[in-house]
Amino acid sequence: MENPKKIIIDFDNRIEKSRTQIYFTPGPSQLYHTYQMHLQTAMNKHLGSINHRSNVFREIYEYTDTQLRLLLNIPSTHSIFFASSATEIWERILLNIVEQNSFHFVNGAFSKKFFNFSTQLKKKPSCVLMEDGKGFDMANIDIPTDNELICTTQNETSTGVQLPSEDLYLLKNRYPNQLLCTDLVSIAPYSEIDYNLVDCTFFSVQKAFGMPPGLGVLIVNNDCIEKSKGLNAKGINIGAHNTFEAFQSNYFRFETPSTPNIVAIYILGKIAADYNSIGIQQIRKEIKAKATDLYAFANTSEFFKPFVVESKYQSDTIVVLDSKVDSAAVISYLSKQGCTIGSGYGVQKNNQLRIANFPATSPQEMSHLIELLSSYKFP
Amino acid sequence: MENPKKIIIDFDNRIEKSRTQIYFTPGPSQLYHTYQMHLQTAMNKHLGSINHRSNVFREIYEYTDTQLRLLLNIPSTHSIFFASSATEIWERILLNIVEQNSFHFVNGAFSKKFFNFSTQLKKKPSCVLMEDGKGFDMANIDIPTDNELICTTQNETSTGVQLPSEDLYLLKNRYPNQLLCTDLVSIAPYSEIDYNLVDCTFFSVQKAFGMPPGLGVLIVNNDCIEKSKGLNAKGINIGAHNTFEAFQSNYFRFETPSTPNIVAIYILGKIAADYNSIGIQQIRKEIKAKATDLYAFANTSEFFKPFVVESKYQSDTIVVLDSKVDSAAVISYLSKQGCTIGSGYGVQKNNQLRIANFPATSPQEMSHLIELLSSYKFP
Repeated sequence: MENPKKIIIDFDNRIEKSRTQIYFTPGPSQLYHTYQMHLQTAMNKHLGSINHRSNVFREIYEYTDTQLRLLLNIPSTHSIFFASSATEIWERILLNIVEQNSFHFVNGAFSKKFFNFSTQLKKKPSCVLMEDGKGFDMANIDIPTDNELICTTQNETSTGVQLPSEDLYLLKNRYPNQLLCTDLVSIAPYSEIDYNLVDCTFFSVQKAFGMPPGLGVLIVNNDCIEKSKGLNAKGINIGAHNTFEAFQSNYFRFETPSTPNIVAIYILGKIAADYNSIGIQQIRKEIKAKATDLYAFANTSEFFKPFVVESKYQSDTIVVLDSKVDSAAVISYLSKQGCTIGSGYGVQKNNQLRIANFPATSPQEMSHLIELLSSYKFP
Repeated sequence: MENPKKIIIDFDNRIEKSRTQIYFTPGPSQLYHTYQMHLQTAMNKHLGSINHRSNVFREIYEYTDTQLRLLLNIPSTHSIFFASSATEIWERILLNIVEQNSFHFVNGAFSKKFFNFSTQLKKKPSCVLMEDGKGFDMANIDIPTDNELICTTQNETSTGVQLPSEDLYLLKNRYPNQLLCTDLVSIAPYSEIDYNLVDCTFFSVQKAFGMPPGLGVLIVNNDCIEKSKGLNAKGINIGAHNTFEAFQSNYFRFETPSTPNIVAIYILGKIAADYNSIGIQQIRKEIKAKATDLYAFANTSEFFKPFVVESKYQSDTIVVLDSKVDSAAVISYLSKQGCTIGSGYGVQKNNQLRIANFPATSPQEMSHLIELLSSYKFP
């Protein structure tokens, strides 16, 4: 037999490639600097072709599971499942945990969408609606006693409000018989979560894990899985794809209910390992320092100011700034200088800037961005 | 500012890399030979970081849409949506099209699972159950007149049964008031489909498009979308994520309801373009020729024979062979020779071989595999 045709790899392009843009966008965002190396290894190992019921895949799942547990301090009470996105996961959680009542803390577009999903799924959700940019007085908000699932969003990507983990625990302490869920989409692995007090969390990889979109991670304890089994036994429609029971029965042998995004699961494990080798506390320290610099700049800027006023609610990973000038002009200027940042969300599109502060951007890069923002001569 | 840190790319590995294994597995399978080149271009263009509401993404969606239309001869009556997998799509179709009754042609594990999904979603499906390896006498199978959706699987990946497109059209001609869906997972773009006679099809990219898993493609006409809107208006639970209406309202501007696997959508368009530049008829001719050789070998082999007896139902893309010797031994031998093939599915694991015949493997590679199979000295 002839030598089989060679894979055509046009890697010479890389010579011309420089890091022309740094992405401070809220996600998809800057890829973590090891991403491409892991991607290339995945290709060399033929991970795009392997079967998801093979030993190779099981080893990958187990590796990523181990690294995420270490990174996020996830105890053995919780399982780690892979879905396609956080949006899909909203739906899975509501289908599998809620028979009728979910209660939502809504203070922006994404927490609102989570609430809307519950309505669309014919549940009977209720919510406390806070104006954008504000946190919640958790000690004084009463949740109906027949509520099943409390839905919180620790970091509102649309408005840059971050809820202290202690606020979440307070809810669990007040309502120990209700399941508590928190959306960590744009904050994991930055926030510390005590998984003894949170039943269910999730995130997607295109935010602070510095990967392209295409993978969501769901972390649930046994109470959530038992609830799902109970609903199923009662004849409630819990969906057919990626049910908690299907996830769990496959998870016992480190498999997934159907063919997942295998390459992304592999790379997520490798990036989690990279984070672990730096140390999560060091990563958190760096993010905090970059956020502090950015807020310090905004507090004294003539043209920008933090949208979130109360510092305890100011997100360290998604910094939202009010802009006195049309934000499109600022964004366009920064882009020409090699920095891509996000616009405001929804109605705030032209009035605000959203700047992601993830591990993929270095302190030097953040300083550079702040320099550009501070030296820009407004028209 | 210092030059930002360089992306570490360990591409020197490629020098040591040769095509050590050829994947004839039913999917995930061999990557198409242009895959890595397109992946590298995607990385160079920062497609892992771009926003899914940006012009760049809209252009990618439109490009992939155009190339798929050309390749699969999809008329303007049908929309092309992107989900995460065919398994997710089973659920979306049943939620969005079926109020109560779906009718399923079941002749293997995957068509069975599609049927089971309908039960799990609290619909009232019925089916015609054919033994594995057989097709259906479409002219004489009666479907209840109150049925809403006819679900067919053109290519049963578990058993290697391929239904002629004419059989599908016959169903539509007999039941013009019912919506007709066909699962093209392991056959697109090989089969020719007249979209005037098929309302809904879908596939995933890790089969005959030679990509890693992580993207599903759903092709539906307006009748399906209108049905979904009608169910929603009636208060039926059609799901919250990736509803047909959300897909369609975003599709008008080439967007998706939530952040999709952008890199995969880009590469799918590029591979479809590669296929188009070769010409779909040429690609089909090559697959047919490779399948003919493989079946010809099996028909005269002492140890193997085609599982599907009737030649009109023998799949050209998934060839299933009965094996007189333990298939694990054959698979292990072939693997050492650089060819990975699939085992039988489920209870047939040790009795059968499954060999994918997708565009990613060349005629020479298929000849090589046949040579190995025919020269193997059985114990």
